[in-house]
Amino acid sequence: MWRERGPNAYFAAVPAPSLSAADYAQGLLAGQRGTLARAITLVESTLPQHQALAQDVLQAVLPHTGGALRLGITGVPGVGKSTFIEALGLYLVEKLGKKLAVLAVDPSSPRGGGSILGDKTRMPQLTLHPRAFIRPSPASGSLGGVARATREALLLCEAAGYDVIFVETVGVGQSEVAVHGLVDFFLLLMLAGAGDELQGVKRGIMEMADALLITKADHGNEQAARRAARDYEGALHLFPPAASGWAVPVRTCSALSGDGLPDAWQLIEQYAAQTQASGYWQQRRAQQQLQWLEEAVRQALEAQFYAQAGVQATLPGVRQAVAAGQLTPWAAAGQLLQQL
Amino acid sequence: MWRERGPNAYFAAVPAPSLSAADYAQGLLAGQRGTLARAITLVESTLPQHQALAQDVLQAVLPHTGGALRLGITGVPGVGKSTFIEALGLYLVEKLGKKLAVLAVDPSSPRGGGSILGDKTRMPQLTLHPRAFIRPSPASGSLGGVARATREALLLCEAAGYDVIFVETVGVGQSEVAVHGLVDFFLLLMLAGAGDELQGVKRGIMEMADALLITKADHGNEQAARRAARDYEGALHLFPPAASGWAVPVRTCSALSGDGLPDAWQLIEQYAAQTQASGYWQQRRAQQQLQWLEEAVRQALEAQFYAQAGVQATLPGVRQAVAAGQLTPWAAAGQLLQQL
Repeated sequence: MWRERGPNAYFAAVPAPSLSAADYAQGLLAGQRGTLARAITLVESTLPQHQALAQDVLQAVLPHTGGALRLGITGVPGVGKSTFIEALGLYLVEKLGKKLAVLAVDPSSPRGGGSILGDKTRMPQLTLHPRAFIRPSPASGSLGGVARATREALLLCEAAGYDVIFVETVGVGQSEVAVHGLVDFFLLLMLAGAGDELQGVKRGIMEMADALLITKADHGNEQAARRAARDYEGALHLFPPAASGWAVPVRTCSALSGDGLPDAWQLIEQYAAQTQASGYWQQRRAQQQLQWLEEAVRQALEAQFYAQAGVQATLPGVRQAVAAGQLTPWAAAGQLLQQL
Repeated sequence: MWRERGPNAYFAAVPAPSLSAADYAQGLLAGQRGTLARAITLVESTLPQHQALAQDVLQAVLPHTGGALRLGITGVPGVGKSTFIEALGLYLVEKLGKKLAVLAVDPSSPRGGGSILGDKTRMPQLTLHPRAFIRPSPASGSLGGVARATREALLLCEAAGYDVIFVETVGVGQSEVAVHGLVDFFLLLMLAGAGDELQGVKRGIMEMADALLITKADHGNEQAARRAARDYEGALHLFPPAASGWAVPVRTCSALSGDGLPDAWQLIEQYAAQTQASGYWQQRRAQQQLQWLEEAVRQALEAQFYAQAGVQATLPGVRQAVAAGQLTPWAAAGQLLQQL
């Protein structure tokens, strides 16, 4: 069933063509973890025949998707993201009986065994839990490609019965915008102390957050964390309210003691209840789907265009002339489009 | 030279074909206002022969562009944008001897005589000043189209010798992102009182600002304005620094008394000096030009695609199925791309 292909065998492994879309769908709807893992490998594959099969699988399970709470989690390295995900994840699967899938969007992540080992090390208990499914980021590649694969993986996890999905990202780049388009709720983890620690958070990310959580409120750091929470809350009040009508809360938590985790989860459930009642939730999901349609069309058109030999030959010189102010962007685009 | 075409004659008027690109270039470089107005009408035209001529004009004057300070100005209706532009503009042209062009990006603006009348009414003195050139937003239409026309108008103004260019936008939508990609410095006007007045400012706009200016610090409102400035400054310190290394200042001003206007302008010149010395200014302009190239390619590809009869016939049903969750965005894109 699995083909070994060198050091990246786990990821590169693709299912034998004998498995049909119906087989995949059946395995997914039965909640088989192995089928889920293989189906995600399929959506991550760039081979045309895999992509075609992946679309058939997705279409077959589509009526069984949409049931999960999709939670985006971001924060700079050092904020304690892994420990937080491990702690909140264990709370959800153990105390609340949830089925949790953890996905990641990190286009810079190296593909290979190291990455899995990394995830197993950084979330040791969650990795072993039967109601948790952890999958590292798809291959390094274009953000668009990684985000697409993650969105499809998310649908597969929903079909396999996972009712909470974490989509984790690294908090330092454009990935957050992509993840924001994938999830229902976007949680930003922050450290107490608003100085150098913030340097890594990109401008604009804070304004996408539906809640801020000050981590590491433990070991004598509780007061500083509470002070930071108050400061951020004050700052956020100066900023315009979200389209959802939700006022962005700021809380503290400790992944070590577990303090603040049930509260944080309650906030998220409250958001879900409030926006589902107002219709904003459903409306936002429909909007996200239409955005993905436009994005899919755009990706396909641009991929076709930039793959043309004539365009590839012309592009470097044209870009140089545009950057140097010797050619207007529209004249340059015209030159490129003539290559079609 | 001008053809009258009904009530929108001023805007719809297009130059006779007898004017060549070289004629336009010569008139522009001589600083002729009439030629500038006509050249802008040309870049705003959607007729293919006008667009071709416009590209030739732009290409001819391109070596003479880039010399202006490009200032984006935004703020919700009611913040006093027109009075601020009038006051700062008069300060620049009268006290500093600058040549100022004021452009606008407002895709929702109705095209026609009312709009000019409006601009003449709202900036009565500036409109009459020989060193000021005021042009309303191009026709209502797609934001991409309006932004493109504005960027080309900006280059034409530079060729005509204007050394400061204001690009004004309404502060309530996606236009700010487009304007941010056009300008060197982005100024956000705010009111004292962070309550309801803020509702209209879209999330994310505050984080694009290079400076915040609290307007209407007059008539007993001075203290409230200073307090608001302190609050915003405190809030902004919690936010990550800009890529330029520039710490976003917050100041107060009064367009009525003129208080704060010289200070505000000094800040902007300081920003220019600092980022020109660091090389950030030049780097950002080159980046903006490359972004416009990508945008131009994307616009052209999407326009070609969505104009196909097959795509137009298929799109509504496909969008409905995607929004309802019955079809994956990628399967839907595949169906649309088959229409090619």
